[in-house]
This record gives sequence, C-alpha cells and structure tokens, in this order.
Amino acid sequence: MLLEDIETPCLILDEGKLDANIARMHAWLAPRGAGLRLHVKTAKNIEVARRAMGHAVTGIAVSTLKEADYFFEHGVRDILYAVGITPGKLDHVARLRRHGADVAVVLDSAEAARAVVEKGAALHQRFPVLIEIDCDGHRAGVQPGDPVLTEIGRLLAGSSAAELRGVMTHAGSSYNAKSVDEIRAMAEKERRAAVRCAGALKAAGLPCPVVSVGSTPTALYGESFEGITEVRAGVFVFFDLVMAGLDVCRIDEIALSVLATVIGHQKQKGWAICDAGWMAMSRDRGTAAQRIDQGYGLVCDADGNPVEGVIVSDANQEHGVISSRDGPALDVARFPIGMPLRILPNHACATAAQHGAYYVVDGGRDVVAVWERFGGW
Amino acid sequence: MLLEDIETPCLILDEGKLDANIARMHAWLAPRGAGLRLHVKTAKNIEVARRAMGHAVTGIAVSTLKEADYFFEHGVRDILYAVGITPGKLDHVARLRRHGADVAVVLDSAEAARAVVEKGAALHQRFPVLIEIDCDGHRAGVQPGDPVLTEIGRLLAGSSAAELRGVMTHAGSSYNAKSVDEIRAMAEKERRAAVRCAGALKAAGLPCPVVSVGSTPTALYGESFEGITEVRAGVFVFFDLVMAGLDVCRIDEIALSVLATVIGHQKQKGWAICDAGWMAMSRDRGTAAQRIDQGYGLVCDADGNPVEGVIVSDANQEHGVISSRDGPALDVARFPIGMPLRILPNHACATAAQHGAYYVVDGGRDVVAVWERFGGW
Repeated sequence: MLLEDIETPCLILDEGKLDANIARMHAWLAPRGAGLRLHVKTAKNIEVARRAMGHAVTGIAVSTLKEADYFFEHGVRDILYAVGITPGKLDHVARLRRHGADVAVVLDSAEAARAVVEKGAALHQRFPVLIEIDCDGHRAGVQPGDPVLTEIGRLLAGSSAAELRGVMTHAGSSYNAKSVDEIRAMAEKERRAAVRCAGALKAAGLPCPVVSVGSTPTALYGESFEGITEVRAGVFVFFDLVMAGLDVCRIDEIALSVLATVIGHQKQKGWAICDAGWMAMSRDRGTAAQRIDQGYGLVCDADGNPVEGVIVSDANQEHGVISSRDGPALDVARFPIGMPLRILPNHACATAAQHGAYYVVDGGRDVVAVWERFGGW
Repeated sequence: MLLEDIETPCLILDEGKLDANIARMHAWLAPRGAGLRLHVKTAKNIEVARRAMGHAVTGIAVSTLKEADYFFEHGVRDILYAVGITPGKLDHVARLRRHGADVAVVLDSAEAARAVVEKGAALHQRFPVLIEIDCDGHRAGVQPGDPVLTEIGRLLAGSSAAELRGVMTHAGSSYNAKSVDEIRAMAEKERRAAVRCAGALKAAGLPCPVVSVGSTPTALYGESFEGITEVRAGVFVFFDLVMAGLDVCRIDEIALSVLATVIGHQKQKGWAICDAGWMAMSRDRGTAAQRIDQGYGLVCDADGNPVEGVIVSDANQEHGVISSRDGPALDVARFPIGMPLRILPNHACATAAQHGAYYVVDGGRDVVAVWERFGGW
C-alpha cells in the first residue's frame, strides 16, 4: 500500500524518525543516571511503547485507566496512573492489581490519602501512592515546604492499605517557555522541588524510594538529575511543532503528520482548501503564543518536506484553509485538486487522539505497517 | 445504572432536551415550507438521527464517508457528502451508490467537475452533484455572480457521468455573529446567495432541483426560506455554549455535558481540579471571542444545574481547572474530592468527538441507555 491509496485525512508515522527520537532520549538520560518512565498518553499504542521499552525503562505512566488496561493486557506490569486518583476509580485500580499489574496512584491531599486508605482497607488492597508536588503552579500538587506533605506521608505510611512509594512532579509550564535557558531553569526547579520534598519525607522518617519528574522539554534540557530516580516523558517519541518552537527538536525530527488532500481553492484569496480540518488536526493552537504561529499545522509535501512558509491558517470541522503564513498570497496552482499533503501537528497528543490508526512509513511513501490506536476512557 | 456508577470523564446526553431541541427545529421550519436535512456530523449516532428523522426530513448530510457508510448500514439512503469531493474518494462513493445509497457530492470548481465526470465515466457511475456557493467568505464555494458557476453546471449537465442536482451553501460565519440581528441578516444573505445561483443555473437552461442552505443559527433565525428546498443543520440536536452565547438557545436547553469528578484542590488559588481536561472537553474555545468566555466549559452539579459563575478556566490533557469566571476566588470546600460535576461544552461537535458513547439520562441520574458513537474517517 502506498500513501496515495489511503483515504484522507489519516495519521502518518515515520518509523525512522520515531526510532531516532527514542534513541536520542535514551542516549541523553542514560549517562545522567536517570531512568525513563515512558508516558504512553501520547502514542496509546503498544508498538510505539515497545520501541521505547526495548531500551531500559522503569515502566510506563498512563493518563487514563483505559491505557492501564490496554498496556497491562499487552504485558506491561509497572504502571503509574499519573492523574490524581478519586475513590470511584480505586475499584478499577484494585481489579488491575489483583490480576498482577503494579499500578501506583497519585494524590496531593490528606483528604484523598484518607479516601485511599479507607478504600484500600475495604478492598483488602495495599495501594502504592506517589504524592504529587507542584513545582510550577500550573495545576495540581502539594507546594514544596507545605507541612501537609508529611501529614499525607504519615497517613499513607501508617496504613497497611497504602504504600508510600515517593513523590512525583511535572513541569507542565515548560511548554510555555520562551527560551532554552528558561527550560533549563524549569528543569532545575522541577528537580529541586521533587528532591526537596523527598528529603522532607525522609527527614520525617518516612520512605521515599521513587523521585519522579518529567516533561519532554525538561527531560531533554535538564542538566542534572541528581536525586531523581525516574524521568517521565511521552511527546518526545513523535515531537511536534510546539516542541520545535521551543527548540526541543528540529522540524525534520517530527515523526507524526496528517495526510490530507487538496479539495478546492479560493484563488483570489490565495487559499487552497484541504480535507484536514480541526477534526483531523485537533483544535490545539499551541504555537499561537510562540515566536512562529503555525496555525493548525505546517504544510509539507507528500514526502514530508515542509513547503516553506505555508500553513493551515484556519480550520472548520473537515476543512483546512492552506495559505501563506505571511508574505505574498499563495499561488494556488501549486496545489491542484487531489494533491496529497502532509500536515505537521502543533501537539502530537491532541492530533493523534483524533485518529484510530497510525499508517507507518519509513521515509518513503510505502506504508510498511498499520498500528491501531485507541482513545476514550 | 446511575450516573455515579460511570467512570469519569464520560459524555452525558439528556434525552428530554434532545427531543425538545429536535421538536423545536421541526416546529420552526415546517410552517416555513423548508425541509430539514439533518447534519449527522454532530451526533454520529443512529438513535439521535432516528429521533430527528421521526419527523419529515429530506435525508442527511455527512462530513465523512465513514458517516455515510454507517448511516447507510442503518437504513438511511439519501445522503449528501457535504465536503468538497476529491477524485480519490469517488471509488468509495461509487461503492456506496452501487449498494443503493443515493450519495451526492459537492464541488466548487471546473477542475473538480471534470475530475468527477472523468471518474464517473470510468466507473460507469452517474454522480449527483451540488455546486457549493460561498455566501460569506469563510471557506469554500463559488462566488455568487462568478460565471464559473454556469461553466461547472454545463460540465456536469453535459455528461452522463454526472447529475447536476443543485446548489448548496453554508453560512459558517454565523458562529461568529455578535447579535441576533446579525444572524438574521446572515440567514437572508445565505438564502439570497443560494437562490441567486439557482436562478443563474436555470437562466442558463440548466437544472437546479435542490437549493440547500444551513447552519444551526441561520436555520433558527431565518425569516424567509423562499426558494430554498432544504435546510441543513446538526448542532441544534444538542446545542452548546457557543449557541447559547449567540442567543440561539438557552443554557438549560443544552442536552450534552461531560461528567467529571473532583480530584483535588489548590485552595489558596480558589481552584478545584477535575478529571475532565481538554481530552474530554476538546480544545475548542469557541466562547473565547463571545460576550461571556466560558473557558473550557460551564460547571453544573450532577443534576445538570449550572453552578453560577463557575467554569473550567484552564485545562491540561486530563486535568480541568475549575474556578470562578470572575469575582471572588472559589470556596473549594464546596467541591470535595470525589464530587461528580457536569460540564457543558463550548462546541457539541468537538466535545462529542472525544467520546465513544453517550450515557443517556432523562432529567435525573438514572442512565436509561448507552448509545455508541464513532469517530475517525
């Protein structure tokens, strides 16, 4: 099967770039003594995970229990459910644990810790727990220095229904960094927050075997991982335009694209219309606040080579408007009806989530494999 | 099953509101002599479509050929594929037609018309075609008054491989209207563009049996449908916050919501964190430019009653930040961990697309049905 034979829009994954991105992350972390915990929320596919897990990994992080189910069915045992747990989800976690999955949960309050302990006792379970730390104010987590940390630690360590496994944090605001120096500073802040909180637990006589940090930008720009036992990252397997805008990757390292077809023109406006709208690209406009706004995606030819300065500047549900980013209006004669194009996405997680499969290519236009992908909860 | 028994996030559909929304559209259009062509891109589910088709409809509009496959398998024969056709998709259309589906396609250029005629001849098919008209400059379509319209018309009518079925247009920019008067004016502009182009075809001795317009706002505020044979609309079955912001519906008419659970707090910031992030709500921020910015969604209690002034103000992939829209910081004690909430979406099409099923309720918390939903292409 060739790319041209697939009905568009569809998701294309370049295998060579995928492998190179994975190798790069491992080559960066290994000499720095930091283990990798692969965040599978980006790929949601076992073939991609296997590539990453061919190297040494500590396990996976998941963003949904559906991911936990799927990856456990595919043989992955060490799973961190990295979204704050609610009591209502502990039956599901217990079910996975009874079948042999080592699923750990995260929380950031005494209220949640008490709920876990209570539910663990009722279910005859001992839930492993990481306490979430807030290193950058962007969403959840205990503030470093807040005495509630040791209160939570004591609640968990003092119960046979929980196992205090450590601390975790995520420098999610690194996605909004304005420079590489800022990412480096965020990586160090992320590390210090986790190490400080691990120290506070230990100083209180509590265990903290796991000290977990991570985001793709801070993983690849962190200069020290001292005191860290594992780094969580997911987007790096594919990369995307947001990462390129942060100088975390080059444009030609982006492994994921959406294959689209030109369906029409508005010649006087310099628009070509294609069949990849926001349903295929996602509504993610993560580059809007970056130096270069890539619209809904950067247009490439069918071989994946960027068409200089041409983007999907606007989108309807199933229509993408292709135009010049700036400068003179596009000569639409370059984009005849039926022409295949590949659009690089702003955000790999968001774009991949709109699709049910990866059409895998290796540089050329031959589809060498089709890998299923799931969504939902 | 009760709402509380479902793992969150998940999609809730209020059956009573659905039925009332459908009845409202039919009651509005019927005395005005305009038929309804249901756009199924919003619901992508046969149960929802059947409710609407219990009334008189002319058929359905689809935004993907996967929708065409699904609805034809479920007995719907009259299908308009309302996204500009490319030659590569005509094999698929021909396959459906050979099985008895009356699938019509749309195009807006002589180039595309020639491709359809050529492919129709090769496949021994006679493809019904609507010519797309641009009534508001927002994406595709022939400009009213452009002589290319009759050129396309002659290309199609002059071939046994195509059937010139008429014209269609979509006032998509009505989503950005600033007042009801503006929507009324857009509806009239949409109608006039379609009627004018139908007239131009007829004046050239060409057939134009179908004159198709539509968007939910212009369908419900159009004052005249003279010369129109059908109105296409889809969002009205559910409505959403964008429609409420346009005064097309009331907040309490929105039939769709995302059930979420509180997973934590940042007390000093007045944030409650829930497990509906942008993956569950979509990245659609369609209310951002409206009078009232609803963030990623308006927070309701588990019975669907809005919590005054409380929205999902920010979102990560699986985390939603719940806070006051403005005014004093939220008292997070009102939102204990484990509390179920329902979030009304900005854009029904985008939010529904993130989910694989509708959990149907009828006013209360009893789940009376689960309706599957599909995505992709």
